Amino acid sequence: MRNIKVSVAYDGTDFVGWQNQATGRSVQGVLEAALAKIHKHPVTIYGAGRTDSGVHAAGQVFNFYSDIAAIPEERYAPALNRLLPSDVRALCSGGVEETFNSRRDARFREYRYYIYPGRPLPPWLRRYCWDRAAGGLRRMNAMAAFLPGRRDFTSFAAVGDTNPAKVKDVYSAGFYPSGPFIVFRITGNAFLWRMVRNIVGTITELAGDGAAPEVFRDILAAKKSLHAGMTAPARGLFLHKVLYGGDAQAAVY
Amino acid sequence: MRNIKVSVAYDGTDFVGWQNQATGRSVQGVLEAALAKIHKHPVTIYGAGRTDSGVHAAGQVFNFYSDIAAIPEERYAPALNRLLPSDVRALCSGGVEETFNSRRDARFREYRYYIYPGRPLPPWLRRYCWDRAAGGLRRMNAMAAFLPGRRDFTSFAAVGDTNPAKVKDVYSAGFYPSGPFIVFRITGNAFLWRMVRNIVGTITELAGDGAAPEVFRDILAAKKSLHAGMTAPARGLFLHKVLYGGDAQAAVY
Repeated sequence: MRNIKVSVAYDGTDFVGWQNQATGRSVQGVLEAALAKIHKHPVTIYGAGRTDSGVHAAGQVFNFYSDIAAIPEERYAPALNRLLPSDVRALCSGGVEETFNSRRDARFREYRYYIYPGRPLPPWLRRYCWDRAAGGLRRMNAMAAFLPGRRDFTSFAAVGDTNPAKVKDVYSAGFYPSGPFIVFRITGNAFLWRMVRNIVGTITELAGDGAAPEVFRDILAAKKSLHAGMTAPARGLFLHKVLYGGDAQAAVY
Repeated sequence: MRNIKVSVAYDGTDFVGWQNQATGRSVQGVLEAALAKIHKHPVTIYGAGRTDSGVHAAGQVFNFYSDIAAIPEERYAPALNRLLPSDVRALCSGGVEETFNSRRDARFREYRYYIYPGRPLPPWLRRYCWDRAAGGLRRMNAMAAFLPGRRDFTSFAAVGDTNPAKVKDVYSAGFYPSGPFIVFRITGNAFLWRMVRNIVGTITELAGDGAAPEVFRDILAAKKSLHAGMTAPARGLFLHKVLYGGDAQAAVY
């Protein structure tokens, strides 16, 4: 059995999320269905990040075990694209060590959150950004500057997140202008469920109110899960990239 | 009754087209429904271009007559946006002369057609471009160079176009790279039904086959409606802009 690693991009709008659910169309589900057609038996895949419904990916990664010897490793991506719906595209595929697990072994994850501060929102951007007035870039970046480091991010955990592991390494975080967007880029080893959306929602709200950066620092330090209403909508969030091994180290340092 | 001119943008994917049809959701229909709510009676609108199903607009124009004196002319656009679905956005509104008709008086129309030559197609672009290999830019532009002028464009009319007026003024036409796209930009006073899509389909096919530019010139000169299969798909086409009066003259010269 070869272990195959695949990078995929998807438009999360019409999915219940990455993960299989009792009902609804999941990204994992359409990928497993395509792989089952290729393999003529069920195939289970392991994804690096469990994106929520409406969250997109430019570089999600998964792996699976294949018992087909005849397909060169790099041909799984085009083979998948012939079977996948157009809102999921395989970017590339390759062979990895038998013990490789795309979730457990990921060392670097990058998310990008797209804010569209203009008005009105062009209809072709409506699924891919959050249309809201942004606070000043300088103020938002003064808040984001408190994020990097090994920290307990309980303050930005989702309501109902029962996972006890709340300490994560954030490598970098900041807002920058890009075309018509204000983009929030954050990199780290891993993220809590809804953490990026809660950070974006909190910073934009505070900055919009003209709050001092220290208000954000104090929220982060309080390690108390936020009240609802500060979660930025799913549609602006992209899982941009996941890196492993030496690639991850090179990206961090 | 004031005559109000409105610019709108829309994602044509989920519409049967601009024009009202016996069944299905039309852009004209959702705009008239929003205006009927504002006016508390039916309102008819007149659009500058009858875009097909799947064709988008960045700057479609329509006009209508309003018997509400209390709304400042520039407030119709935001009032519409509060009632419209997110795939249609009013960009701006203003008062025009009582005799103004957005279709009859348009003197300059610009269409843009987006080709995505890369692979695979990012899922968030799939509704807004045609993913196909493009021929060389130089060859395609050598063909496009035959288009400007006052010409009989019967060769690029849709099969079944019974309108006898086949002579149109094309002001400019050309392909240029823009980000990940090859964009075909064409401006003129007016266009035949499917004309832009037939031109793009023909040039990309000929250029892909390595045909000499004169082959395109001869097709244009033949004034015979093309066989089917050379029509580029609707999803790459945007009605980019419509101009009137002095604005149109300034854009042409």
